[in-house]
Formats: sequence, structure tokens, C-alpha cells
Amino acid sequence: MSEVFVARRERLRDRCAAAGNAAAVVSHPANVRYLAGASPHGGVLLLGPREDTLLCAEAPTGQPPEGRLDEALRLRVLTGAGGDPAVAAAGLAVEQGADTLAVEENHLTVARHRALGSVAPRLRLGDVGGAVEQLRLVKDDEELSCLRIAAEITDQALGELLESILVGRTERHLALELERRLVDHGADGAAFPTSVGTGPNSGRGGHRPGDRRVEEGDFLSVGLGATYRGYRCEIGRTFVIGTTPADWQIELYDLVFAAQRAGRETLAPGAEYREVDRAARHVLDSAGYGEGLVEVTGHGVGLEIDEDPQFAAAAMGKLDARVPVTVEPGVHLPGRGGVRIDDTLVVRPEADGGPELLTITTKELLAL
Amino acid sequence: MSEVFVARRERLRDRCAAAGNAAAVVSHPANVRYLAGASPHGGVLLLGPREDTLLCAEAPTGQPPEGRLDEALRLRVLTGAGGDPAVAAAGLAVEQGADTLAVEENHLTVARHRALGSVAPRLRLGDVGGAVEQLRLVKDDEELSCLRIAAEITDQALGELLESILVGRTERHLALELERRLVDHGADGAAFPTSVGTGPNSGRGGHRPGDRRVEEGDFLSVGLGATYRGYRCEIGRTFVIGTTPADWQIELYDLVFAAQRAGRETLAPGAEYREVDRAARHVLDSAGYGEGLVEVTGHGVGLEIDEDPQFAAAAMGKLDARVPVTVEPGVHLPGRGGVRIDDTLVVRPEADGGPELLTITTKELLAL
Repeated sequence: MSEVFVARRERLRDRCAAAGNAAAVVSHPANVRYLAGASPHGGVLLLGPREDTLLCAEAPTGQPPEGRLDEALRLRVLTGAGGDPAVAAAGLAVEQGADTLAVEENHLTVARHRALGSVAPRLRLGDVGGAVEQLRLVKDDEELSCLRIAAEITDQALGELLESILVGRTERHLALELERRLVDHGADGAAFPTSVGTGPNSGRGGHRPGDRRVEEGDFLSVGLGATYRGYRCEIGRTFVIGTTPADWQIELYDLVFAAQRAGRETLAPGAEYREVDRAARHVLDSAGYGEGLVEVTGHGVGLEIDEDPQFAAAAMGKLDARVPVTVEPGVHLPGRGGVRIDDTLVVRPEADGGPELLTITTKELLAL
Repeated sequence: MSEVFVARRERLRDRCAAAGNAAAVVSHPANVRYLAGASPHGGVLLLGPREDTLLCAEAPTGQPPEGRLDEALRLRVLTGAGGDPAVAAAGLAVEQGADTLAVEENHLTVARHRALGSVAPRLRLGDVGGAVEQLRLVKDDEELSCLRIAAEITDQALGELLESILVGRTERHLALELERRLVDHGADGAAFPTSVGTGPNSGRGGHRPGDRRVEEGDFLSVGLGATYRGYRCEIGRTFVIGTTPADWQIELYDLVFAAQRAGRETLAPGAEYREVDRAARHVLDSAGYGEGLVEVTGHGVGLEIDEDPQFAAAAMGKLDARVPVTVEPGVHLPGRGGVRIDDTLVVRPEADGGPELLTITTKELLAL
């Protein structure tokens, strides 16, 4: 496994060198994990001119959620309270002869940046920018297989819930049960706070589960995902409670389903991000639901649940093969509820069978 | 309720003005919540020369975990993707005639700070520093009553677990069950990831629950806490599984108990932070367990689980009345396990009965 991390660090080192930086400090946890195999709490990675070092305030545990550290990496555990590993990393870069150091300006606070500058005043500080996030976009086989397992766990947890009695139970309880089932099936934990919305709360993306109980005739929306070895996926489904859905429910469901399918069908290497958004949005727009839609109809997933790319009207860029994304349009009618359908898929060329659907729970409108 | 938030903002405004800043942007979620009653995702608070405004990218939901927004506050929901509420706040400050603006350098990233500077190049940017965190140190009646309820919920969840069969269950399951019980009893959620350590894992502060099952003769350590209306508390207890604890278990337990009591007994207005640490640490040191102890034996709690003060050897400062803190020494013997005992207490003067213990679960060594 070590070669993978060495190669990733080499690619980042090349990018930093091209921008005139002799060394780099990576502090964003998901980026540290991508490059070092693990992200111990507060740990910071120095790509030094001579040696790469992971600096942290406590010894790594090697357990989820932090992952297993690349053994080829030098580890330095700082002793004494209050030491900032990023500041120590800057000192180490100077010791190794660096005169320039790139930092993650998107993640490092102003105060830490200042501390770093004052410990090594002759060091010229540059910006790593989104370089690690860009490296993380296209996933390798190992990463994709973690995502597949995460999706399998997610489908299992959701499938079991559907077999249980739902009427009378609160959103909060259903969400907790889903999270327990994720862990039962081997997840490190939930990829994001599980969302369960019933009745008027259904169809809202990030709805926080509350005390409302499931009633006959409700729409029930769930959004959940497992984390497996750090990789996070996402599924969203909407069901109807009772024997027969009402006409408005069937219509709304069919519409959101059509929008989600339209979005999925655009997924291909070379497709523009905004094209995916436009395809899904157009279906809802044409039916008169354009107002009040959320601004993003999908996004990348990986070590974070919300990564690049973003499927939005103003998003710039084109999809590559091996990029895992969500497609998740939804419509929420205030006071009545709504529908959200969300899948995680991997972009693949048509020749390889097109987009690979990871979350395979049925998208038929089930009446539970 | 609104007066509370208005008064808190007034105090912060005075501090900023004293430092020469006409306006302030607060972006750290716990600080936003303290001053505005709620912290919608990504929301930023502007204390303007003319008016205070909460800016956010999405409309607040008013549900846990974000809280309920102070109605006296102006709300501005930004439309269009990609807008940074902190940058919009700086623009608004300029519109209101501010020429200086304090930001939270401890929390704001370098990239956002730069964006803020470039949207309003004539605005002189200052630093809020830890001003809001300082205001948050001493709690009012409302805050203390939330903490009391959080502690009550925590005690209930733990008490129920103790009545159930433990042998054969995994750390992971016990942790999930505790979190479910917290929510059952009315918590917004867990205050921090619940820690359950069995056998060799017992006694380690932040141990992440794994697949190890509880066995006869084990030490079992749990660390958990509820969040209630945003306020977080913490309890830690260690038990023995089986009928009779071994001699080494009794000795180690008595020692950690004595250390924790020594720490608790120093809690009083005017006591130095490091004095609390020293009192607890001294007991363990004298018994030969000084090596390998964690560097902090307790900390403040409130809207965050780890706030000021810190009880550590190098900590500077003195306790005030109405400051809620934890006292949580522990000893972990590699390969064998250990003991950690953790309470949340509120500092009170001797005349008012001394420190108020919020987490009242027994600290006798229970054999379960």
C-alpha cells in the first residue's frame, strides 16, 4: 500500500515545485489522509525537500476514523501542550533547507498562518490551493472498491429498515436505527448525519430528524450513507406509507424520478458539470417546479461527503472517468412534503457500460 | 430571550470598539450561536455600526442542532451559489460606514480573509481574537439550566445501560446504544463521539469503540455526554465486569478516584487552572503513574465540548464562579487497561456550597 501514498505525495510535490515551492504543509484532514493513509486528530503532513513527516500532538491510534498510517512516512509526535504541528512542520522545513513553503490557504486559519510565518520569518509562504482536492477527484481501484462496499452497507441498512414497521415511529428513531444498522454491517460510521423526513418534512435535502411520527399517507424521505475505510457514499429514497399513494404523490414522484434519471444519463467522461445540473433541473423546471429548488443537484464523494465536482448552473469543468458523484434532485412543497431521489454513481465511458450505479436500492415508488 | 443576545452582542461591540474596530464579523459556529441564538450552516454574524445581521447561504431551519435565531436580528439569506457570507458581511459593513472590521483570525481561513480584504480594500481588518470565547466562559442561569438537563439525560442513559447485560457485547454496540438512549431522553444528540473501552482499551480517554466484546474480569470505561439546546456535558466512569474486582483493579480505581477528588476539591472561584491540574496529577505522580499521563486533566464545557479553561501544567488563569468544567484524570496501563473518572461540575463559592456536581452517577467501583 505504501507505494500508493508515496506516488500521491510525489504528484503533489511536483505541482508545488512547479509553483516554486520547495516544501508543503498539508493540514486539511481529508487531504492528510489521502496522502498519508491516516489523519490522526490535528495531524499535519510536511512534504519536505529531504523527507516527508507526519506531525501530530498525540500518537496515532490507527483505528477508524483516522485510518492506517503509511509506514514509509516519518512520524513525529510533539510533546508538551500547546504546540501547533503546522508551526513545527514549518520549522522542520527550514531545517531541511527549504526557503519556500506552500500551505493550504483554503483550510489554514489566519492565526495559524501568522504563527507559522513568525516561527520562520525567512520562509516565503505560498499556497497549495486546491491541488490535493484535484488529485483526489479521480479515484483508483482501491478507492472505488471502498466506495462499493460503503454503498453495499448503505443498501443493506436501508433494506432492513423497509422490512420493519414504520407507522408511529419518530424521524429521530428511524435515523438512529439506520445509523446503528450501518455500523452493524461494518461501516466506520455514518458518512453524514442521517436525514429522515416524514409528511411535510419529506423531500427536504438536509432535514434534521425531529419528533414527528410516521403516519399513514405520508411521504417518507431518507438520506443516509456509510463510511468505509474513510470513503463516504450517499443514497436518498422517498416512500409512501400505506397501501395506495395519492395521485399528487405519484405525479410528483414520477417527475423527480424523471429528473434524476435525466441527470444520471448525462454522466459520461467529458460531460460538463453544469450539463448534469441542467438536465435534471430542466425536467423540474418544465413542470413548473423551477422556483425554490436547491442550487446543487449533485456532487463528488470520496474521503469527504461533499467534494468536487459540484453540479450547479455556474459550475465550470468536465467529468472524468472514475469520478464518483451523486445525482440528487428533489422537490419540496411547503406544508405538504416532497420527494428526493439520490444515488451515488461512478462515471465510466459508454464503452465500459456507462455510469456504474453503486446504490442499487430500487427507485420504484414503494408503498410501505 | 432576545435581550440576552442583544446584551451579549453589546458586550462584544464594546470590546471591539475599545480595540478600534467599528464592526465585527463572527464566523465560528459556537460563537455565532452564542450571539445570535442559532448557527445555521455556514452562517456569519455581522455586528455593524448601524445594525446586526446574520448572513447565511440557506434559510435557517430553527431545528437542532442550529437553535432558534434571535428575532431582533436582521436575517439575510444570500441567493446564488458560491457567495461567502463572510465576504457579503464585509460589504455590508462598508455600506454601513465602517472603516475597520474585526474578524476571527483564530477561525477564518487565509483564503476567506484574503477574499474579504479584496472585496473591501479600504477596510482595515483587525482581530476579534478570543473575545467571544471569553464572554462565553461564565454561564448565565439559562445556560446552566441547559447543562443541568444535559447532565440529567446523560446520567439516565448511562444508568439504563448499567441495568442491561453487558458481557459478550461489542464496544461499538454499547456506544451506539448509549447514543440512542441520549436521544430517547431528549438530547439534541451526543455531545461528542461516545467512547467505550473494554479490557486493554479501558481507561484511554478518547478510545474509539471497536469490535472487542466485553469479557468477565474486564475493566469497562465509558465516556459520553448529551447536548441539550446546544449545551454539552460529559461523564466518564469505569466499571468492573463480573462479581469480584481483582486487587490491582481496586488499587488502580481507588487511586484514580483519589486523583479526581483532589482535582474536584480545588474547584473554587479564584483557584488557578494549573492548580486543579496539579492537585489531580500529584496523586497519580506520587503513586508512580506520572509518566504517560495525558496533558490535560479537565476543561470547560458549554456550546462546545472542549472550551476554555484548560487544566494543564502550563495553563494561565483563574477560575470564576459559574464556569462549568470537567475533571477527568485517568491511568491506562498498556496491555492491561485502566481507569478514567470524569465529571462535569459548576464552579461555585464555598458559601454557596462549593462546586455543583452535574453528573451524579455513582463513583463507587461497581461490579456489573
